Amino acid sequence: MDDNTTHFDPKDFRRALGMFATGVTIVTTQAGDGTPVGVTANSFNSVSLTPPLVLWSLAKSARSLQAFSDASHWNVHVLAEDQVAMSNLFARAGEDKFSGLQLDTGLNNTPLLHACSARFQCRTMFQYEGGDHIIFVGEVLGYDRSERPPLLYVTGNYALATPKAEPVSTEPLADIGAALYSEELLGYLLGRSHHQFMAGFRSRLNERQLSDGDFYVLSTLSVREPLSAEEIAQHVAYTAVNLDQHAPEALCERGLLQHSGAAGTSYTLSANGRDAVLHILAAAKDVEASVVDRLGEQEASLLRNLLKRLILATDPGLPKLWTATAPTSSH
Amino acid sequence: MDDNTTHFDPKDFRRALGMFATGVTIVTTQAGDGTPVGVTANSFNSVSLTPPLVLWSLAKSARSLQAFSDASHWNVHVLAEDQVAMSNLFARAGEDKFSGLQLDTGLNNTPLLHACSARFQCRTMFQYEGGDHIIFVGEVLGYDRSERPPLLYVTGNYALATPKAEPVSTEPLADIGAALYSEELLGYLLGRSHHQFMAGFRSRLNERQLSDGDFYVLSTLSVREPLSAEEIAQHVAYTAVNLDQHAPEALCERGLLQHSGAAGTSYTLSANGRDAVLHILAAAKDVEASVVDRLGEQEASLLRNLLKRLILATDPGLPKLWTATAPTSSH
Repeated sequence: MDDNTTHFDPKDFRRALGMFATGVTIVTTQAGDGTPVGVTANSFNSVSLTPPLVLWSLAKSARSLQAFSDASHWNVHVLAEDQVAMSNLFARAGEDKFSGLQLDTGLNNTPLLHACSARFQCRTMFQYEGGDHIIFVGEVLGYDRSERPPLLYVTGNYALATPKAEPVSTEPLADIGAALYSEELLGYLLGRSHHQFMAGFRSRLNERQLSDGDFYVLSTLSVREPLSAEEIAQHVAYTAVNLDQHAPEALCERGLLQHSGAAGTSYTLSANGRDAVLHILAAAKDVEASVVDRLGEQEASLLRNLLKRLILATDPGLPKLWTATAPTSSH
Repeated sequence: MDDNTTHFDPKDFRRALGMFATGVTIVTTQAGDGTPVGVTANSFNSVSLTPPLVLWSLAKSARSLQAFSDASHWNVHVLAEDQVAMSNLFARAGEDKFSGLQLDTGLNNTPLLHACSARFQCRTMFQYEGGDHIIFVGEVLGYDRSERPPLLYVTGNYALATPKAEPVSTEPLADIGAALYSEELLGYLLGRSHHQFMAGFRSRLNERQLSDGDFYVLSTLSVREPLSAEEIAQHVAYTAVNLDQHAPEALCERGLLQHSGAAGTSYTLSANGRDAVLHILAAAKDVEASVVDRLGEQEASLLRNLLKRLILATDPGLPKLWTATAPTSSH
């Protein structure tokens, strides 16, 4: 615990304050001379329901302080996630912030911006002393809301919100192994996710009497062929499935692969093999579609991205499967 | 635009206010009689840098109003993403919120909670009228901060922050089977992530001649025991590992499990078995630590969160492993 009492390092203090997430707002009003005025603020919050009150604070050094101090009315716009540019625009000092913007006219001729997550039209209720800021408390006279996801500001960066998952199991654990083996362990979550995902199309493997190893061989060849038994083994090595050296030959005998190359030591998919793997992958795509449907497109993308980063972080140096380079030719 | 002027539908008005994202805090103080007092609040915000001021508001109807009105000092705790249970606890009315919690002692004997994203120790500076709430403005006398990603509250739900600038993924793929089997397929990414993660500690399994199935049995029992062979099979079913019915018996013969219960039909870990699983899980923790180190705390939390949501979306109805409820007793 720091025990600095008044003079904190401003940068460090701001970083601590930044741990509290906020939305981003633009507050607008009309100056005495009729000019529209607006500033970006993340110091907004709700205060009271009856009467409906909200607050925000503005630096005493702000150029717009006079306008807001004099104003009887102002509008708070909760920005949507695609309004970063507008947030940056109104965070800068400048004259022409409103030029080219579509505006509605709010109470007392105050400007109202478009395409926000929510808007609150307020009448000044109190102005309170707040150190180097003035705290403005306003009564909400009107508001509207859209379905646009809001923009966030967290630890000094713009961010989006991702709903928090319910715990997979229920309660915190009591006992012995808990400290080591818990549902917070990434390894557990990866394993369970992977296994449940595969369970969604395992019937397709079973009905064709294909093992997980067989599936890895067929799907590898569906992307790149011909491959020798050794090359196949290299590609599948990371799975640690029991892929015995004769697996490709066994699949050959079942009519799913065929020999290729001059020496006949490489393998390609047969028509039957291609048919089998396409059916299985189509089922995997169905599982994928239902997962994406549940998570949402944006979060599925996020998950893919994080998994790719984890894969890069743990890559044991596998040969690339998906590349534009020619396969080491053996035919 | 609604033009209701004073009496909004409270539910709808709250939904509009909820578009503004916030962190979640617990504010604590000590009542006049020495009792620790704490409430969950998302109305926190920073106000001023010089002097360092923050604010939050509390309903005039709150049971703790008197304590906070009288208090010269209070502490704001910005909650971390894994502190939902604590947030819910302090959001409820109740006497015993602090029992069993680890506490530090803050200024003027105020209680300080552990494991937050940031903490601010404050001296009351102003108490302002705010409709049905009182606005407390405090001078920050001390603070600290951790690297724990903060918990968010957005549109009425807990959430995590996702940094807005997304890292670009890898290169586009060559095509052949790409339409079906590609590195964009979640199933592929999950499998490869999972397998690579396990590869990081597979040597520990190999040196003890334990199969993946053996590992699942031992780790399940490390969380909950005793279990019958049938119960073990239920817990491990999702993995689709070839767990033959005699697996627990075989582990018994190797001295890793022991019989339990009157009928001797259930299993617990033996001392050797516990030793083995603890060593393996410690190695898994090492892999986890290096992955978290590469991804960063915040993105590891995000990944965990998304995997949990995927698990819930694909859950075939597994028996819960981590619950506080008593196991179906067979001993």
